[in-house]
Amino acid sequence: MRITVALGGNALLKAGQEGTVGEQLVNLRLACRQLVELAREHDLVITHGNGPQVGKILLQNEMAADQTPAMPLDVCGAMSQGQIGYLLQQELHRAMVAAGSPHEVVTLITRVLVDPDDPSFQNPTKPIGSFYSAEVAAHYMKEKNETWIEDSGRGWRKVVPSPQPQRLLEEKVIKQLVQSSCLVIASGGGGIPVVEEPGGGYQGIEAVIDKDLAAALLADAVESQLLLILTDVPGAYLHYGTPNQQLLAEVTIEEIASYAAAGHFAAGSMGPKVEAAIRFVSRGKGRCAIITALDSATRALQGKAGTRVVAVL
Amino acid sequence: MRITVALGGNALLKAGQEGTVGEQLVNLRLACRQLVELAREHDLVITHGNGPQVGKILLQNEMAADQTPAMPLDVCGAMSQGQIGYLLQQELHRAMVAAGSPHEVVTLITRVLVDPDDPSFQNPTKPIGSFYSAEVAAHYMKEKNETWIEDSGRGWRKVVPSPQPQRLLEEKVIKQLVQSSCLVIASGGGGIPVVEEPGGGYQGIEAVIDKDLAAALLADAVESQLLLILTDVPGAYLHYGTPNQQLLAEVTIEEIASYAAAGHFAAGSMGPKVEAAIRFVSRGKGRCAIITALDSATRALQGKAGTRVVAVL
Repeated sequence: MRITVALGGNALLKAGQEGTVGEQLVNLRLACRQLVELAREHDLVITHGNGPQVGKILLQNEMAADQTPAMPLDVCGAMSQGQIGYLLQQELHRAMVAAGSPHEVVTLITRVLVDPDDPSFQNPTKPIGSFYSAEVAAHYMKEKNETWIEDSGRGWRKVVPSPQPQRLLEEKVIKQLVQSSCLVIASGGGGIPVVEEPGGGYQGIEAVIDKDLAAALLADAVESQLLLILTDVPGAYLHYGTPNQQLLAEVTIEEIASYAAAGHFAAGSMGPKVEAAIRFVSRGKGRCAIITALDSATRALQGKAGTRVVAVL
Repeated sequence: MRITVALGGNALLKAGQEGTVGEQLVNLRLACRQLVELAREHDLVITHGNGPQVGKILLQNEMAADQTPAMPLDVCGAMSQGQIGYLLQQELHRAMVAAGSPHEVVTLITRVLVDPDDPSFQNPTKPIGSFYSAEVAAHYMKEKNETWIEDSGRGWRKVVPSPQPQRLLEEKVIKQLVQSSCLVIASGGGGIPVVEEPGGGYQGIEAVIDKDLAAALLADAVESQLLLILTDVPGAYLHYGTPNQQLLAEVTIEEIASYAAAGHFAAGSMGPKVEAAIRFVSRGKGRCAIITALDSATRALQGKAGTRVVAVL
């Protein structure tokens, strides 16, 4: 089976951790043990979030801005793909050696095409970078025409558009490598968002693509049978966070779409994972998507954990 | 013909420039026009330096170190591969569209194996990062056992080992992609240096591999016929910088090796380019290496510019 795995940010960096490279490598160890188990029997394509990492890169760029020009968000995203891809390759290699199961592992810098007329450009909602005072926010809103929001009493943050991913520019090469049994890491952080230029070519833009929606596109492009979304909760719940919360075990896309419409899944959290599952399963026959916790990946494939989204039960 | 092109740092950032993304893209435009001309008739593998870029990343890491942990040099190298590879892909795409000559272009994060017993580990010589005061240097030499040197009156800089590249860990995949007519960007900044761990797996280390020596290895791995080293001077000179300076047009590896032994080529500048040319040409039959200026790439292939290093005249 060909599986596209989407690793949540918590696979690399946990809440409260400082973010040293040592912490990230230890965190990745757990994820890589699961991935190597899967790679024994299946072809894997791996994608991952980059929220904490790109936040740190943005902070570093800003703190040094009077000495060296800060890079725009698209370039910072490319840097985070290099950083995380490298660390993931290193830990995957270690885990493969330990398991006696060698594979080629590569990281591909990945750009994702978005539509310049995507409605999200009129309504930026994705917070990036650090928290700042109202004064700082007011300055950037006025001087640079940026959008900032007050975030739950913790201060002000810049928000950028989160457009729909349309096509991975590197999809042909990714597919070719997967077909030759290479373990590919691609589309990190949802991919680097670019728009097509009038004269041809592509322009990087200041936006963030949801990594689970990009993962659905990646899974589609490489003709996966399974999209495996690994996160920090056991699956998708009805009435999550209430005494009546109920884990969904196996659901059809119609059922889970109706739960989504009823507001069961939080925007920016379980919401896009469910949406990614629906998109992937509805685009091809015999497909399945699983949302589960990082340490339950192999059990979820045996039907013993997670939320399984299918076309028909 | 299959050509491995090594782009010097000046292809991206010129002396005196601040280093904005706009400057880098404009600089790359010139390089990409030449590369697209070459790509019409030949298979290309591209590698590049990362000195100015990784210097800026190190500075940014340090300036923000009290707020977020600084990443080690290997991780910063991976980030620079992501950054430069992305910018190069973007400009190559634009140049290819303009020339009506489309190719797939991908950037592969590339690790390069070095020997932990390489003598350079006993004698670090490669300066990295910014200039500091003697006091700062003394602190790091004492507290972290680092090596720092006083650099020509401009202050103190940290120096790291520059070990010999032994093998590109991603060489199989790079070769496979080149064989399928994909334009590959790999081994940026000389590659991320790693050593083999006792239990298997690889450990990133604090070192810098010379990008031209890594380019010779890359050219060898993908079975190039030509190694094309693009820099900011027209070629290799005898008596460079004197009234008697003389450009070498076509030389054998024996001739240029004897000139190198006589001290004609500066260490850390033309020296490693000449050494890379000698290594590449001497490792296989019918091979050629050219050292020339960025804007003379296509003319050099016609024998009208640059220094051509061959096995026999």
